[in-house]
Amino acid sequence: MKVTVVAGNPKPGSRTLNAAVLLSNLIAGRDPDHVIDVTALGVGLLGWGDAAVSASVETVATSDLVVVASPTFKAAYTGLLKLFLDQFATGNGMKGVTAVPLMLGAGPAHFLAPELLLKPVLVELGATVPCQGLYVNDKTFDDPAAYQGWLDQWGEIVRRNAGPTHES
Amino acid sequence: MKVTVVAGNPKPGSRTLNAAVLLSNLIAGRDPDHVIDVTALGVGLLGWGDAAVSASVETVATSDLVVVASPTFKAAYTGLLKLFLDQFATGNGMKGVTAVPLMLGAGPAHFLAPELLLKPVLVELGATVPCQGLYVNDKTFDDPAAYQGWLDQWGEIVRRNAGPTHES
Amino acid sequence: MKVTVVAGNPKPGSRTLNAAVLLSNLIAGRDPDHVIDVTALGVGLLGWGDAAVSASVETVATSDLVVVASPTFKAAYTGLLKLFLDQFATGNGMKGVTAVPLMLGAGPAHFLAPELLLKPVLVELGATVPCQGLYVNDKTFDDPAAYQGWLDQWGEIVRRNAGPTHES
Amino acid sequence: MKVTVVAGNPKPGSRTLNAAVLLSNLIAGRDPDHVIDVTALGVGLLGWGDAAVSASVETVATSDLVVVASPTFKAAYTGLLKLFLDQFATGNGMKGVTAVPLMLGAGPAHFLAPELLLKPVLVELGATVPCQGLYVNDKTFDDPAAYQGWLDQWGEIVRRNAGPTHES
Repeated sequence: MKVTVVAGNPKPGSRTLNAAVLLSNLIAGRDPDHVIDVTALGVGLLGWGDAAVSASVETVATSDLVVVASPTFKAAYTGLLKLFLDQFATGNGMKGVTAVPLMLGAGPAHFLAPELLLKPVLVELGATVPCQGLYVNDKTFDDPAAYQGWLDQWGEIVRRNAGPTHES
Repeated sequence: MKVTVVAGNPKPGSRTLNAAVLLSNLIAGRDPDHVIDVTALGVGLLGWGDAAVSASVETVATSDLVVVASPTFKAAYTGLLKLFLDQFATGNGMKGVTAVPLMLGAGPAHFLAPELLLKPVLVELGATVPCQGLYVNDKTFDDPAAYQGWLDQWGEIVRRNAGPTHES
Repeated sequence: MKVTVVAGNPKPGSRTLNAAVLLSNLIAGRDPDHVIDVTALGVGLLGWGDAAVSASVETVATSDLVVVASPTFKAAYTGLLKLFLDQFATGNGMKGVTAVPLMLGAGPAHFLAPELLLKPVLVELGATVPCQGLYVNDKTFDDPAAYQGWLDQWGEIVRRNAGPTHES
Repeated sequence: MKVTVVAGNPKPGSRTLNAAVLLSNLIAGRDPDHVIDVTALGVGLLGWGDAAVSASVETVATSDLVVVASPTFKAAYTGLLKLFLDQFATGNGMKGVTAVPLMLGAGPAHFLAPELLLKPVLVELGATVPCQGLYVNDKTFDDPAAYQGWLDQWGEIVRRNAGPTHES
């Protein structure tokens, strides 16, 4: 199983990124194979065909499990994350990938954003998203307890979907 | 595998109901075990604890695969369908059920409604919804071709999720 | 200015209803002219053409300002409220009405629901909804302070839109 | 009245931009005062405090009427547009601005995207958005007839909201 984390926070090495790595570990029981800090792709994101961007897209497209994470900006995912997602082919750019939408925010108000806003983009790319989108308060992002309720409900379902395809 | 169809059209025996039965057949390869025409539950939907409503909720809750269908009223699912869904326990009322959101409408304008509006309600009930929500034009509801693109993309994923649990 | 409150809680005389009346007072500076507790309309909501339902629809349609309120059921508005809204003409059933979406819930998690879910239904009916949808914790529903931030930002804009039409 | 058009298409001088200028003309009866083709802001969008980006933000924030336009990428607004919107202050970055959400797409399927996805971002920035979000097929973007139904329903309401503030 190939596991990748994508984080769309303009700040490098953000809490968003660390939360996504932690969630990935809690789901897969080990570190992710690839960590894509979208902000590091820089100006290549503003056009089409940049080599580093294309390589990152390919990494995601060939993964079995991808945690896609964003901080909450303006009650939605960041423009930076969406820039990266806009690079994928519509309909099948994430076909065969099991994706988990994760958003972090300063308070509980935007709890619905990963389910109502981020998930539909991943599904439009063809990803299988069998779980509810997860929202985590950015003050408790490094506490596994903040993920436990979601894991109890969705962890096994995510693992089952990620398992049988793209065996590596 | 126990297969159930739910249709929330105020008109009994509606195109919505027939579309849901057809989609269920296309996914499962056979007729559904149960068909719940929500409008037949009548006034019991307006309170809590009605026997026929409770039995229908139990039928859904113990199914492996449920197609949940609604016509498009005011660019969203119907109040009638939501009345029925409000009878389930939050968080786990559909736990273990693989659900497919289906909406019918007179034109293509509300194509996003099953994904953005109906799916999140089913997920909130604990259903596994591994596919994109499907919108079908109500003029072609009885033509299997109207479902083919969706089936090619999501049919196997839905079957895989519905299969391993609640084996009957 | 004709002011109406609509509350879609299955429980009569609910906190939802009282919150909507309070918000209406805070906006308009006086009690509403009409209060529609949707649950009182009962079985007439399940069909079309019921006299009491039609009269309530007409009351809303001829109002200048309507607060439309729902508790949060399954992370969305109630089926009961939507049953009532389904009775309006699409596109212009609330034309000329300035509407305020209000939702109550037990915790902050569903804060986005009035903006993302309830507002679009009102707009589809032709209502003018110039404000952000408001979510209030049902533990503080009777405390004007719970509405103050929203009022400071949106109160005058709502009043300005409700004022110049349908002068009574 | 200060009128501004914002277009978030990665392609300079796009149909999106031209559609937004046309809609602005149809609403205001004259050419916009400012046209912001977001793609021209380039790499400054990837950080904070770029002078040209800040000037564009200021232009929008001090406008009375802003048409905010995006092509439909992955069933949502573009990452490029959201990058620009992420530069505004949450809650009041567009306070006093009347904004019109406009999206273009290749077919009718994503008709709901401007209402359900783009509008809430503008409202979160404090903009007054008294109209339904508008979706236009990109094959008819230069035909005023494609805008007429929306204009009949919402044009006067938008003008009334844009009029009384920030008189220039």
